[in-house]
Amino acid sequence: MKILLVGGNGTIGRCITAAFQTRGHDIIIAGRNSGSIQVDIASPESIDAMYRQAGVLDAVICAAGTGYYGPFDDMTPALMLPGIQGKLLGQVNLVVAGKPFVRPGGSFTLTTGIAAELPARNGTCVALINGALNSFVLGAAQEMTDGRRVNAVSPGLVEDSAERYGAFFPGYNLVPMDKLVNAYILSVEGAVNGKILKVYE
Amino acid sequence: MKILLVGGNGTIGRCITAAFQTRGHDIIIAGRNSGSIQVDIASPESIDAMYRQAGVLDAVICAAGTGYYGPFDDMTPALMLPGIQGKLLGQVNLVVAGKPFVRPGGSFTLTTGIAAELPARNGTCVALINGALNSFVLGAAQEMTDGRRVNAVSPGLVEDSAERYGAFFPGYNLVPMDKLVNAYILSVEGAVNGKILKVYE
Ligand SMILES: NC(=O)c1ccc[n+]([C@@H]2O[C@H](COP(=O)([O-])OP(=O)(O)OC[C@H]3O[C@@H](n4cnc5c(N)ncnc54)[C@H](OP(=O)(O)O)[C@@H]3O)[C@@H](O)[C@H]2O)c1
Ligand SMILES: NC(=O)c1ccc[n+]([C@@H]2O[C@H](COP(=O)([O-])OP(=O)(O)OC[C@H]3O[C@@H](n4cnc5c(N)ncnc54)[C@H](OP(=O)(O)O)[C@@H]3O)[C@@H](O)[C@H]2O)c1
Repeated sequence: MKILLVGGNGTIGRCITAAFQTRGHDIIIAGRNSGSIQVDIASPESIDAMYRQAGVLDAVICAAGTGYYGPFDDMTPALMLPGIQGKLLGQVNLVVAGKPFVRPGGSFTLTTGIAAELPARNGTCVALINGALNSFVLGAAQEMTDGRRVNAVSPGLVEDSAERYGAFFPGYNLVPMDKLVNAYILSVEGAVNGKILKVYE
Repeated sequence: MKILLVGGNGTIGRCITAAFQTRGHDIIIAGRNSGSIQVDIASPESIDAMYRQAGVLDAVICAAGTGYYGPFDDMTPALMLPGIQGKLLGQVNLVVAGKPFVRPGGSFTLTTGIAAELPARNGTCVALINGALNSFVLGAAQEMTDGRRVNAVSPGLVEDSAERYGAFFPGYNLVPMDKLVNAYILSVEGAVNGKILKVYE
């Protein structure tokens, strides 16, 4: 399959790339500063340009974006904005704008996270973003035509991020990268639709 | 208790007002065009002005806001914006900006909806908004200080809206208004925190 992977050079994206290439897929990596197509998912215009450059696709995967992590009492609308425009609305727009570029039977796989149901301290903005996307997937999956599908992978704290983020997530199990990548494979190669694929341990 | 009710003249708000007044509470109604305080929750400045006008409160309830309802294929970022700035970020800001105005032990009660987990056709944007708020409540409740609490009431299709909206929600049970209002009473007068109070039938 010809698969567009947004955030393909990130911690999770690198593992997805390796696994899907091993499985014989053609992976086009898009990223803000890396990959073969430059895109800022916070910008609908940038997403349109990316799709025109990529051409017709069998699948789109997004493993890009983040949100405000910090004290709740310091959280302002301005601090929440980049995550809402990026990880949240960026992934929504990848689906909304991407539909004409994905073949019938093709799929969209977004990335959310465990914060939607078990937020860490300081993680309320990320919780909001992930919860929004999980519910978006339920609705969008119902609206897809010609067998197109939409799912979300919801990771817990992944093994490869333990060093960088572990201290902020006491008590969260580390998710083995191969189990996480399996969820993306299930979404892309399987038949599931409208699922939140939770990989929490 | 002294309770600020945003959207107190809406379908749901009117029932909340009547029930809470019967229970001896002092209800201050805020609304865009109605009530004793004018507020547009889409504007953080307007929310700040409302709180300064209302003074110290025991509880804040919001039953205001809506989102894009319509064909998925016509959904654009621009059509999604009012609901995201209003019902979604408006309710978030009611909590974030309202904390200093709510007494220790006081509460915030937001309104989400069944679309978060069972979206109707054309309801993907509303699903996103409700899912975001439900997860926000989980995070925010953990961050509250001095016994302050945050909950969401998640209604199904309510009886008083059957005539207006029923045709768009085939197969959704009608929620009796007194059962719905009980959820707001539980949130305000009870001890629950971080709960999504689902009232679907
Ligand atoms: N790591 C975890 O343990 C964990 C747990 C739960 C959920 N998640 C979620 O999983 C996703 C990936 O996480 P990660 O740890 O792999 O992130 P990461 O290492 O920071 O990588 C993110 C990638 O996304 C790209 N990116 C960021 N913002 C972008 C934008 N606005 N437009 C286009 N590309 C953008 C970056 O590209 P450039 O490098 O080119 O800028 C980077 O390659 C995120 O949504 C994260 O919230 C991660
Ligand atoms: N009705 C249902 O069956 C149902 C089901 C599930 C969820 N809900 C949710 O419950 C909430 C209330 O629903 P409803 O049917 O009672 O709505 P409604 O009858 O349309 O009333 C909404 C009220 O909110 C106020 N309002 C709207 N936008 C506002 C803004 N930006 N700033 C301040 N006030 C604003 C309006 O004030 P003015 O009149 O002064 O403009 C109005 O009083 C909504 O969030 C809705 O999505 C309703």
